[in-house]
Amino acid sequence: MCAALTFEIDHACTATRARAGRITTRHGSFETPVFMPVATAAAMKGVTVAQIESTGSRMILNNAYHLMLRPTAERVANFGGSHEFMRWPHSMLTDSGGFQAWSMSDIVKLSEEGVRFRSFIDGSSIMLTPERSIEVQNLIGADIIMAFDDCPPSIAPQDDDEGDPAPQTDLDADGVPALARSRKRPSVTPAAHQQRLIEAVERTARWLERCKAAHRREADQSLFGIVQGGTDLSLRARSAALTTAVELPGYAIGGVAVGEGTAEIARVVEFTAPLLPPGKPRYLMGVGYERDIVAAVRAGVDMFDCVLPTRNGRKGYAFTRNGPVRLRNAAHTLDRGVLDPSCDCLACAGGYSRGYLRHLFMAGESLGGTLVSVHNLRHFQALMVDIRAAIREDAWSTFEARWPVLGSA
Amino acid sequence: MCAALTFEIDHACTATRARAGRITTRHGSFETPVFMPVATAAAMKGVTVAQIESTGSRMILNNAYHLMLRPTAERVANFGGSHEFMRWPHSMLTDSGGFQAWSMSDIVKLSEEGVRFRSFIDGSSIMLTPERSIEVQNLIGADIIMAFDDCPPSIAPQDDDEGDPAPQTDLDADGVPALARSRKRPSVTPAAHQQRLIEAVERTARWLERCKAAHRREADQSLFGIVQGGTDLSLRARSAALTTAVELPGYAIGGVAVGEGTAEIARVVEFTAPLLPPGKPRYLMGVGYERDIVAAVRAGVDMFDCVLPTRNGRKGYAFTRNGPVRLRNAAHTLDRGVLDPSCDCLACAGGYSRGYLRHLFMAGESLGGTLVSVHNLRHFQALMVDIRAAIREDAWSTFEARWPVLGSA
Repeated sequence: MCAALTFEIDHACTATRARAGRITTRHGSFETPVFMPVATAAAMKGVTVAQIESTGSRMILNNAYHLMLRPTAERVANFGGSHEFMRWPHSMLTDSGGFQAWSMSDIVKLSEEGVRFRSFIDGSSIMLTPERSIEVQNLIGADIIMAFDDCPPSIAPQDDDEGDPAPQTDLDADGVPALARSRKRPSVTPAAHQQRLIEAVERTARWLERCKAAHRREADQSLFGIVQGGTDLSLRARSAALTTAVELPGYAIGGVAVGEGTAEIARVVEFTAPLLPPGKPRYLMGVGYERDIVAAVRAGVDMFDCVLPTRNGRKGYAFTRNGPVRLRNAAHTLDRGVLDPSCDCLACAGGYSRGYLRHLFMAGESLGGTLVSVHNLRHFQALMVDIRAAIREDAWSTFEARWPVLGSA
Repeated sequence: MCAALTFEIDHACTATRARAGRITTRHGSFETPVFMPVATAAAMKGVTVAQIESTGSRMILNNAYHLMLRPTAERVANFGGSHEFMRWPHSMLTDSGGFQAWSMSDIVKLSEEGVRFRSFIDGSSIMLTPERSIEVQNLIGADIIMAFDDCPPSIAPQDDDEGDPAPQTDLDADGVPALARSRKRPSVTPAAHQQRLIEAVERTARWLERCKAAHRREADQSLFGIVQGGTDLSLRARSAALTTAVELPGYAIGGVAVGEGTAEIARVVEFTAPLLPPGKPRYLMGVGYERDIVAAVRAGVDMFDCVLPTRNGRKGYAFTRNGPVRLRNAAHTLDRGVLDPSCDCLACAGGYSRGYLRHLFMAGESLGGTLVSVHNLRHFQALMVDIRAAIREDAWSTFEARWPVLGSA
């Protein structure tokens, strides 16, 4: 029986730390660097499995937090796990539920044991511990599962019900991501905040040991540890050392893309990625915009997830190589052109005009969200295709000329 | 250049008045009897063109009322007509807007000239006349267009924004269609109601002449007349005589399925259908449930449309050969079976369990509405496939054994 996960690097960029390769799980192979779309509650919002596949995606996320509350992890297991439940035959990853417990719930109590919070569905009191998170993820059955970490609150959650709050995007301005609203929290002094970050790094490390001990399906599912530490590089180093001291199939960088902006994301990732073992996959959680992904790839990151394609797609916000298009804008009313003539997605190759897409959003037709979500997913997958080619051919300058959006500030 | 519409009957049932054949328009052929799904605002709610095609549908409706208000018929024409606008390459029919003006708007004034009503979008005052309705339909460009008729109000509209109010289904009971709420209208005496029906029949005939005179695209678009008369058979006879006195490519029966129940629908249709020319398509507007369709086919009707598959699908109401399934019912929570094992739709052939579909509705995931809408569309198209085979093979008893739902009262 083969390993639950294999990672092969077949090309290392000479000019950067980027590498191209392939991850193989029990549900197939996919090329890295990879972008993983988010199917929060075992469903990608408004997008069918065939449509996800049409974008080239072969690895997606489920959110353990949502599934443990509804329909419950035990019911997902009744259906044979989430692959069977949602009829997704390819690879899948679940997060631990910790991030959503912090960002979407009223936390009642944080302790060494775990976090107690109120369910966003019925207000009931839920205790989530490292052991319970792993049990939930064992029941859901994804190919990669994530350690339950202590994520100190920093930035506000979004107001809708999709796994990853991706707080970079407020869509208040056209193409200029606004910082998210600041989280409702008691104001703390810088010293108290620093103390909280230190505590989170140490507790995350202790919880990682408990997660590993609790994991019952090592032959099927690969547990990844998560590095915390905020924007404090010495804490990132401490967390990376503690996390990589535990032998695991892969490692993630958490606690970024929570509102700190492109330059800060790049600074933290460029520092942290090289501290992770070069022979194992590196996963940057919840990132992000095109330029954030490219910067992280160049720092040596292999895996990305983000809700931007679908969340923004539902709102009529389309990603293109030339930058974002807001379809509700009246300028598109009579526009017979497609979103992106270079795109081969269902919407663009199908000839759906910007004017028609605008009509769908103005008329409240959910078909608009579906078409633009599929387009956005294909946009990000096409970016990854080009990134992988740029690594293999050492051709970054050619690559960037094909993606004008990367040049916009 | 060939005719805008040809209708060939290749088999007439020996036991009933049913006939099987084929209609050919500028956008292709489809077999009759045909079920035409409704894409109200040039979009089928939550269903892509490829998904519509996957159900075997090759003829759909648009609602002129919705499109004239948003984005406006002129804008649809700017995109080359609705076929181009919504990227539907097959045949299409538009209704005249009269029925929706009555059922969805506040009518300000009915006169010989037309109807003045308030837009459901912005409350503006709109005048719809026979000439304007035909102009709107000429701009939208469907293959079959409908005469603008006087539809006296009888039964309440549904409360959501889909073309045909299909008031038979209130879904209050599982599988037992409740009569719709009665329309908000001043109570009238039976004599006054009768007088209004008579007036409508006569005005509809006068308006039909104006529609025919206003039609500017006879080479591309086929205008159908509509028989009114409520449940009064002598009025139906009068309306049929007046309507068929105008030479047209096809004729419709309007003003049924507005709450009067299966037996009354059958009585009116069985009386009226034989009054229409046997060599031209007969279209029963807004019908309906499986047994209503079968009864009308046996009376000699060739064309049907209804919003039931998509409207009910969005609410978690699935049609099956054994009767309806309410997916929100807790009985389906752990059900690993598909909706209908005999169904070859995207949802059933794809192995989506009732338990998963229920989860989607409970979690507010629009994917549930998409999957069940596609299933329901395929259910009605499979019914039509079997109806056409039953006509061609004179095999009604074999047919009914395959559709237990037809036997339920």
